[in-house]
Amino acid sequence: MKYGIVAFPSKKLQDLANAYRKRYDPHYALIPPHLTLKEVFDAEDHEINEVAKALKQVTIKHSPFELNVSKVSTFAPVTNTIYFKVEANDELLALHKDLNYNFFGEEPEFKFVPHITIAQKLSSGEHDDIIGQMKMTGVDNSEIIDRIHLLYQLENGSWTVYETFRLDEDE
Amino acid sequence: MKYGIVAFPSKKLQDLANAYRKRYDPHYALIPPHLTLKEVFDAEDHEINEVAKALKQVTIKHSPFELNVSKVSTFAPVTNTIYFKVEANDELLALHKDLNYNFFGEEPEFKFVPHITIAQKLSSGEHDDIIGQMKMTGVDNSEIIDRIHLLYQLENGSWTVYETFRLDEDE
Repeated sequence: MKYGIVAFPSKKLQDLANAYRKRYDPHYALIPPHLTLKEVFDAEDHEINEVAKALKQVTIKHSPFELNVSKVSTFAPVTNTIYFKVEANDELLALHKDLNYNFFGEEPEFKFVPHITIAQKLSSGEHDDIIGQMKMTGVDNSEIIDRIHLLYQLENGSWTVYETFRLDEDE
Repeated sequence: MKYGIVAFPSKKLQDLANAYRKRYDPHYALIPPHLTLKEVFDAEDHEINEVAKALKQVTIKHSPFELNVSKVSTFAPVTNTIYFKVEANDELLALHKDLNYNFFGEEPEFKFVPHITIAQKLSSGEHDDIIGQMKMTGVDNSEIIDRIHLLYQLENGSWTVYETFRLDEDE
């Protein structure tokens, strides 16, 4: 089964992202707007409980983090993906590191660029048509993320939440 | 904000339900296949933490329950909704009761008929065309549900998981 680890931003920010995603992101119906903390990984069905337990051990050591988005950016020309850029901070980087290096024992393929995707799989023409306006409209939101989610993928490509992990367990 | 409480069945049963939902359920893209334990209710955004805390107090008293589906049924002629009928059992009924009568202090509008919807909003013609075949194909699945989820609804009608509550907290 395929798993992933994400944080969902507030309803307000999800609604804002969806206003773009509805038109420009073919994954719109497959998963709510999210910040990916660990890219898709494979695990056997029976391993899910072990993964969840290990994940709990990781998250218990971390605190809530600030999620600040203040600009629209693009990964073009690498991919025509447009996103709300999430400002890195110590808490977020530490959490990402623990989810990708320590327990899971593998180095991520790409440098971590925290983001919330709002458009992807665009043709270069589409991308170039909309990026200017999107950047100009921009985004400005700050909030606290106090939980992350372990998800698994169904056969149709959509994602279901397996478990939530709070970042402030002693509250 | 609108909230709901559901249990997601196993990936296997979700995939099976989605094979039907893809064609016959306009909510297909809005939420994964699920067993509704508490129908949509309203709460202010700032109340979500209180709801979650109360929900934890409820779930902590309950144990995992068996989810058995062994037939396809329909709510017609009340609504043209077709579903995997979930067999009621003491654990499931007790959990449903606590989620609907006790803490939340209101009586549900309808008798609880546990089910996983696979088709809805059909015309009577469509309904009558497919119900026979669906009943004949049937369904046969048994599994243990050890967690439920509190969800909230986005402006586009889709649902995001806020938190997971395990039914076996002392494990």
